Amino acid sequence: NASFLAKRGFQVQLFESREDIRQAKIVRGRSINLALSLRGREALKHIGMEEKIVSKGIPMHARMIHSISGKQSPIPYGKKSQVRLSFNITPFLLLAAEAYPNTKLNFGYKLSDWSFDSGMMTFQGPNGTEEEIYADLIVGCDGAFSAVRKQFLRQSRFNYSQTYIPHGYIELTMPPINGQFAIAPNFLHIWPRNTFMMIALPNMDKTFTCTLFMPFEEFDKITTGAQALEFFQKYFPDAVPLMGVAALKRDFFQLPAQAMVSVKSSPYHMGDRCVLMGDAAHAVVPFYGQGMNAGFEDCIVFDGIMDQFNEDLSAVLLEYSKIRVPDDHAIADLAMYNYIEMRSHVNSRWFLFRKFLDNFLHRIMPRTIIPLYTMVTFSRMRYHEAVRQWQWQNKVSRIFVCSFIRYLMIWHCVIGRRPAKAKNLKKESE
Amino acid sequence: NASFLAKRGFQVQLFESREDIRQAKIVRGRSINLALSLRGREALKHIGMEEKIVSKGIPMHARMIHSISGKQSPIPYGKKSQVRLSFNITPFLLLAAEAYPNTKLNFGYKLSDWSFDSGMMTFQGPNGTEEEIYADLIVGCDGAFSAVRKQFLRQSRFNYSQTYIPHGYIELTMPPINGQFAIAPNFLHIWPRNTFMMIALPNMDKTFTCTLFMPFEEFDKITTGAQALEFFQKYFPDAVPLMGVAALKRDFFQLPAQAMVSVKSSPYHMGDRCVLMGDAAHAVVPFYGQGMNAGFEDCIVFDGIMDQFNEDLSAVLLEYSKIRVPDDHAIADLAMYNYIEMRSHVNSRWFLFRKFLDNFLHRIMPRTIIPLYTMVTFSRMRYHEAVRQWQWQNKVSRIFVCSFIRYLMIWHCVIGRRPAKAKNLKKESE
Repeated sequence: NASFLAKRGFQVQLFESREDIRQAKIVRGRSINLALSLRGREALKHIGMEEKIVSKGIPMHARMIHSISGKQSPIPYGKKSQVRLSFNITPFLLLAAEAYPNTKLNFGYKLSDWSFDSGMMTFQGPNGTEEEIYADLIVGCDGAFSAVRKQFLRQSRFNYSQTYIPHGYIELTMPPINGQFAIAPNFLHIWPRNTFMMIALPNMDKTFTCTLFMPFEEFDKITTGAQALEFFQKYFPDAVPLMGVAALKRDFFQLPAQAMVSVKSSPYHMGDRCVLMGDAAHAVVPFYGQGMNAGFEDCIVFDGIMDQFNEDLSAVLLEYSKIRVPDDHAIADLAMYNYIEMRSHVNSRWFLFRKFLDNFLHRIMPRTIIPLYTMVTFSRMRYHEAVRQWQWQNKVSRIFVCSFIRYLMIWHCVIGRRPAKAKNLKKESE
Repeated sequence: NASFLAKRGFQVQLFESREDIRQAKIVRGRSINLALSLRGREALKHIGMEEKIVSKGIPMHARMIHSISGKQSPIPYGKKSQVRLSFNITPFLLLAAEAYPNTKLNFGYKLSDWSFDSGMMTFQGPNGTEEEIYADLIVGCDGAFSAVRKQFLRQSRFNYSQTYIPHGYIELTMPPINGQFAIAPNFLHIWPRNTFMMIALPNMDKTFTCTLFMPFEEFDKITTGAQALEFFQKYFPDAVPLMGVAALKRDFFQLPAQAMVSVKSSPYHMGDRCVLMGDAAHAVVPFYGQGMNAGFEDCIVFDGIMDQFNEDLSAVLLEYSKIRVPDDHAIADLAMYNYIEMRSHVNSRWFLFRKFLDNFLHRIMPRTIIPLYTMVTFSRMRYHEAVRQWQWQNKVSRIFVCSFIRYLMIWHCVIGRRPAKAKNLKKESE
């Protein structure tokens, strides 16, 4: 969003409590892999970074399901031309923002206090100094545990919820074999095991980042390297030789399982000079790959409203909350729904049949029936409209299936009765 | 809860940020009227305060519905023996706690920091002094905007939601007339007007506290005394002469409309030395009159679990969260449901018919069908079980109504066809 505002000619200052990620050593065990799909790409296009960033990512054309026996079966995302990308985007965003001369980046600054009335913020600087900064517009893009949001919570009539899911996650690495990806690179690999699952996303250095999602209580049961190995041999036997026994035993315990939170809030603005965006306003669980994309889309939507209201901030912020809250709540709910779908439904015949049916209906009625996943990932249809459309389509395809079954039954009756009728006719003619 | 713990022999210290309410002047415009029903009374019985407090309250035997034309119609709460009470309870609770020699009350102490690991708390004392207090168990009973809960929010895996409803409220007074209550005292008076409503609760000094619940946007439209009077004359014409024109015009603007919040959280404990109770854990909107009762019941439940686990705090706190969270979430949802029911359904024939049917079924099957209101207000059935039972009963009475309608239709057909058949028979016999 810094780039969007800078493009408009605002004097932009960016404050980050951590050090500059471009100068930092890589932090292990915390995901820096994000899926970039259409909504995110659109935002990057606005700031002229799309091609630069997309060329650095790895496209994923389909999901690859790993059964317990080691069998691999791809499930495409929809049309073949649709791709997703997986890589670390932060350095590029910083670069993009820095390209504007009216933007200043400040690292190691921690927000200690601020007022949404006066726009005054107090920061703890990198050398323990205290600095006061005044702003016309404060944009809180400071993540799921937002410091800016804390002030919102103290105000009356700010709705907020944070819901932790019972699952935690750990990250493991699958190294390259002979300098090549250990498994097919252009896929989102999934090992669905009902109550838990593992996924693997390709990185530019030919490694895969494997993420194991599992209830915390199950993590608690695994305390030794031998137990971790036994667990993997039982449920992910095909992955064990690729990840390496020694690495597995060691890396399983590198970090405790991380929690995942779904955050909803409304409104997104307070007064006429402060607004929350991205994870600060709406953190989602990572099961739809839309967290970053929704955050990027926030910027496009905000930018559009800035045009619409001629940068009159008090009108812009009001409209932004009104427009964006229902969409972000919809994607948060969808991500929660996919959290169940990915680890269990993906295994079921009914799910595969439904996917097949959706794609079939989409092919015969491409404008009427669009798979939910396509609407969310490969279009810019508003999230809450996508959900409404999906619910309507579910009704339609239920009717379709029912009619089809009825047709089969009638057909069966006709076929089944014909000889009987023929018999009767024969008898009568005798 | 201070009294419960003191009774067990714990050294109890109570810290309150405000001054001692018994020495304070009465704060106007903020509700101190609370409805005490069975759950709250049970808790008071445990600390030997029931009779003392109940005798100071005013029983309410029924709701009294005021129509726009001024017509009054009572709707009983169920059996006649069931009553509710309305008065300010805080001074009595302080008195009860103070009666234990192992309890110390501290007023004007503001919690600035605390740690759930060490049990160390830092307070800002009444004279600006800073005091450190160590405790084996920290009980956060510090209301909907709990200072203790803030620390919970910083921890991982603490689920929390705060939802403000679109309605605000203001309080007005209906003075006594010739030293007597202006309207019948032993009722909860309700003026339901669909999108908004007014209620009135009797006080010991023969006044009524009238509370107007209305969407904030409607409050915003009323800015002058004349507009306030016009509004009352249009919607509550019978109340205007009782409240007084001058008082109404003045008091309407005494305080801005207050917001109402529904707070849910889980778990209620953190580590093995801190627990949230009452509004700090689960603030509810005031439409079921269960806020205080649920908080008091927390104490009984906690006390029971203390017995069960021999005061082993780490086991007690775990069990307390497990047992109490679903019940408090259920009452929060019910209060939200009643928020709609009270201001609109109470007016509808269908609602009155359902109430009638529930009471009728209750009379013929007193153990099987119990009105929800009775289960919640006049029993100690667990809230979440009451909700489950209610949903089951709704199914039963829907079947009952459907069967009844079917029976009526069959009856109608039989009656309707008889002459036709008779005609046919006649014809045939001719």
